[in-house]
Amino acid sequence: MPKILIVGGVAGGASAAARARRLSEDAQIIMFERGGFVSFANCGLPYHIGGEIEDRDKLLLQTPQSFLARFNVDVRVMSEVTSIDREQKKVNVRNLADGSEYQESYDKLLLSPGAAPLVPPIPGIDNPLTHSLRNIADMDKIIRNLESKQVKHATVVGGGFIGLEMMEAFHRRGIQTTLLELASQVMTPVDREMAGFAHAEIRQHGVDLRLETALSSVEYVTPSHIGSEESLADAGSHLELQLSNDEILTTDLLIMAVGVRPETRLAQEAGLKIGELGGIWTTADLKTSDPSIYAVGDAIEEQDFVTGQSTLVPLAGPANRQGRMAADNMLGRSETYQGTQGTAICKIFDLAVASTGKNEKQLEQQGIPYQKVYVHTASHASYYPGAETVSFKMLFDPVSGKILGAQAAGKEGIDKRIDVMAVAQRASMTVEQLQHLELTYAPPYGSAKDVINQAAFVASNIMKGDLTPIHFAEIASLSSEQLLLDVRNPAELKKMGYIEGALNIPVDELRSRMSELPKDKEIIVYCAVGLRGHVAYRQLVNSGYRARNLIGGYRTWSFAQKTS
Amino acid sequence: MPKILIVGGVAGGASAAARARRLSEDAQIIMFERGGFVSFANCGLPYHIGGEIEDRDKLLLQTPQSFLARFNVDVRVMSEVTSIDREQKKVNVRNLADGSEYQESYDKLLLSPGAAPLVPPIPGIDNPLTHSLRNIADMDKIIRNLESKQVKHATVVGGGFIGLEMMEAFHRRGIQTTLLELASQVMTPVDREMAGFAHAEIRQHGVDLRLETALSSVEYVTPSHIGSEESLADAGSHLELQLSNDEILTTDLLIMAVGVRPETRLAQEAGLKIGELGGIWTTADLKTSDPSIYAVGDAIEEQDFVTGQSTLVPLAGPANRQGRMAADNMLGRSETYQGTQGTAICKIFDLAVASTGKNEKQLEQQGIPYQKVYVHTASHASYYPGAETVSFKMLFDPVSGKILGAQAAGKEGIDKRIDVMAVAQRASMTVEQLQHLELTYAPPYGSAKDVINQAAFVASNIMKGDLTPIHFAEIASLSSEQLLLDVRNPAELKKMGYIEGALNIPVDELRSRMSELPKDKEIIVYCAVGLRGHVAYRQLVNSGYRARNLIGGYRTWSFAQKTS
Repeated sequence: MPKILIVGGVAGGASAAARARRLSEDAQIIMFERGGFVSFANCGLPYHIGGEIEDRDKLLLQTPQSFLARFNVDVRVMSEVTSIDREQKKVNVRNLADGSEYQESYDKLLLSPGAAPLVPPIPGIDNPLTHSLRNIADMDKIIRNLESKQVKHATVVGGGFIGLEMMEAFHRRGIQTTLLELASQVMTPVDREMAGFAHAEIRQHGVDLRLETALSSVEYVTPSHIGSEESLADAGSHLELQLSNDEILTTDLLIMAVGVRPETRLAQEAGLKIGELGGIWTTADLKTSDPSIYAVGDAIEEQDFVTGQSTLVPLAGPANRQGRMAADNMLGRSETYQGTQGTAICKIFDLAVASTGKNEKQLEQQGIPYQKVYVHTASHASYYPGAETVSFKMLFDPVSGKILGAQAAGKEGIDKRIDVMAVAQRASMTVEQLQHLELTYAPPYGSAKDVINQAAFVASNIMKGDLTPIHFAEIASLSSEQLLLDVRNPAELKKMGYIEGALNIPVDELRSRMSELPKDKEIIVYCAVGLRGHVAYRQLVNSGYRARNLIGGYRTWSFAQKTS
Repeated sequence: MPKILIVGGVAGGASAAARARRLSEDAQIIMFERGGFVSFANCGLPYHIGGEIEDRDKLLLQTPQSFLARFNVDVRVMSEVTSIDREQKKVNVRNLADGSEYQESYDKLLLSPGAAPLVPPIPGIDNPLTHSLRNIADMDKIIRNLESKQVKHATVVGGGFIGLEMMEAFHRRGIQTTLLELASQVMTPVDREMAGFAHAEIRQHGVDLRLETALSSVEYVTPSHIGSEESLADAGSHLELQLSNDEILTTDLLIMAVGVRPETRLAQEAGLKIGELGGIWTTADLKTSDPSIYAVGDAIEEQDFVTGQSTLVPLAGPANRQGRMAADNMLGRSETYQGTQGTAICKIFDLAVASTGKNEKQLEQQGIPYQKVYVHTASHASYYPGAETVSFKMLFDPVSGKILGAQAAGKEGIDKRIDVMAVAQRASMTVEQLQHLELTYAPPYGSAKDVINQAAFVASNIMKGDLTPIHFAEIASLSSEQLLLDVRNPAELKKMGYIEGALNIPVDELRSRMSELPKDKEIIVYCAVGLRGHVAYRQLVNSGYRARNLIGGYRTWSFAQKTS
């Protein structure tokens, strides 16, 4: 009858508790949670603030009572584990309701403390109108502020998942919103040119998006005749934000969402090994450096699926699956965690932006050789109503063709395409093999040659030497030995714009007008998305020209410009 | 300068022509099409009849002119290739417009003739009110009939893709519709219990679905004072259908959609090898028995990905990819087709029903050992608006865990789940590996533990002996040594119904009431979908009971009843 203690009652901890009970009816299981709620839907918090999820109770998936009834788990909320005595195999617990403390022994201990919002030490940041969002209490506080005072303008700092979701929540409530992002893009899991689709979507909804802009200091301004700094903001108060570009921004509410850091204090003070990235070090079977103590979720460092190196991935999916696996291992099995790809998706108004594996920035940083392709093609048969463009980027090993990562943006079918890539990557498939994928097709759902097949065709063409690519970033530095050729129809250039200096010969006229092109220059072909460009490219090289095709065409090039 | 002739100008043929030109600028390429159109969207025809695709021109993806301009392919419509002289490497062509005939020589010949609708020799079937649907001309004829006469009732024979799509098209036009199906289910690619979801959806929309009902004979009834059997139906005419159950059904229009047969006449007369299933025999590189002649698409027999045996799969995806590959090989490359999984999807009103790999019927027929699981879980986080139930079935090898097939039905995310399974199957993944899949998760798109992860958990539980399953079909024959236990709440039994003879103890009361259960019987546990059933099952076996859990719970059992 093993005694299992679990620190943290949300994703990883709650999964572990339930699984442990299913494996053993007689294990003693106690789950400690510092907050007032267990197993709540932390990913749903912004959507309740925005009003999409109307009923707050829907976020409370389990209660201590329901956990006890179903799983016979002793759930103790408002209970903080303050220290671990590894020698005695005991933890010290503080009851936050009455301040009392006690000890509890364990055979196995699981740490699932999560990660805390990072709040940089910006002058004035500690004020009643500034919030971060991690749990139900944070959410309730934000909603109280929204309801108690007239919030006409809100500012979100940080363009990650939570920042973007909070931006949308405010927009849904009719609040003018500014989004500040230090980097030149939101959504760091994708590369900058793919984030361009997000930038366009955000600005189209009237949000004041400011990239490469930092928050320097905050001033809490409260009407002089009231003047106080209580935890609930005064009715007439607001904030003056000093920005890195010296502008002053007046706002009624500030959300700090610049990232999270693993909660490692407890582990660290107990002398458990901390990884080089600052997360709790774990083995593949989710043990810490103490074999009686396991750790899962946002607090741990885990292995990156692609590089094999340590990584911090604060996402719900891995946390839940790790919790289940840690329970197995605490009860004597030997499951091993297979590494994290970092598959992620974010809804940004009508757009979805998603990715899996490594992005180009990471591959460059780590010196991993790669090639890439872009395709922009319909989410389902274009002749069937409702098709939307899927903008898709795939990164692969230029020699083996192995998939390194994928990113996508669009209004339909984005989750599906990244899921397909996540599976293919996990199975170590190559772009050659992706050509053969047989995906669901009927006009409302897909195409006979799906986005993924098409991307694989382009990648295989490159690998076989049937296509010499040029990428959007190289267009700015073409030499006089190169000639830019736009093979779209003149009406498209007029409507969509074109790249300065391009010669225009529509693809369907190219055969008869090829003599207009100089044989001594390299012809840089482009069309809207790369498809007609490839047809033109093949005509040219098969006719003795040197040529390259702009991968992803004008669409990739133009969205890559959407920073500033 | 090779000369390539292509017979058939739709999916496989058109793909091959375009690819061949991209590979070679100087090949001579001639494409013959018996009909008046090339490269039309044959999968879109029912949707134009139903009015979802309003503009007929949207179905005409290419014209002979556009093909010539872009690909320099000589496209000859209304041109039937009537015979092949393999010795002389020539084909005989009949111009259907003027009846003239001529010969054309080839270096390589590609056959992409497709498959023709099967029309069984039912007495009276040849009449102006009976149609099948293969091409633009068929579609135009059906629409003319719908517009020229008051069609109040239509009958569709055959519950496959085209039959179901035509049923929905008629329903959209406000026409009362009867769907006759000889088998006990529609959509043969899925198993009968999964088709139950389709049957419910069809009946809910007021369609008169008659399973296990055949059409015996047809009588064309036309008002006596007009009386003629011209190709366009008389204004006052209708049909009297004699059914296998001796009923007479009066209808205004009849669609025969009972299946297709490969068009092999040309190949057969040329002495090319025909496979045992009646399709053109091909090698893995898509050659026929004559190395100068290739064949692709609905007309050929190809290798089944799972069993390695010959199969006939008349679907657009394989046809398109085969066309591309045949072009490669005709121009000296050596691509090999990797087998067909038969991945397919059908929209049935608001429902999608999809599958990949082998179904249970096929596995049984072929004596392939299998195990199976069902899960029914939310398409995305259930607390986020718009979540729908995904009903998912997975078939796998009970020893190796290798995926054999998957089926799904539901209103959201069906294509995605079957795509994931199609990739996993193609990569030869096991259910053990599926547990680790890291799929996109944010509340609007998925769950931290996706449908696929959950199905993999259940399958792995079975493989590890953590779960002894019982399947819905065994419930009817429980012995007196078994006791059926419903662990749902009493309110659910009242609302949803229950299985006759079940004892009801809600899962959350089971620990305290376990003594009510006899230790000498096997306890057959079930809940709504299998999840709480598993929790109860684990309590029981960990407490010394013998038990089984009904996989997929009451939902699988009850939809399996939706036949007749």
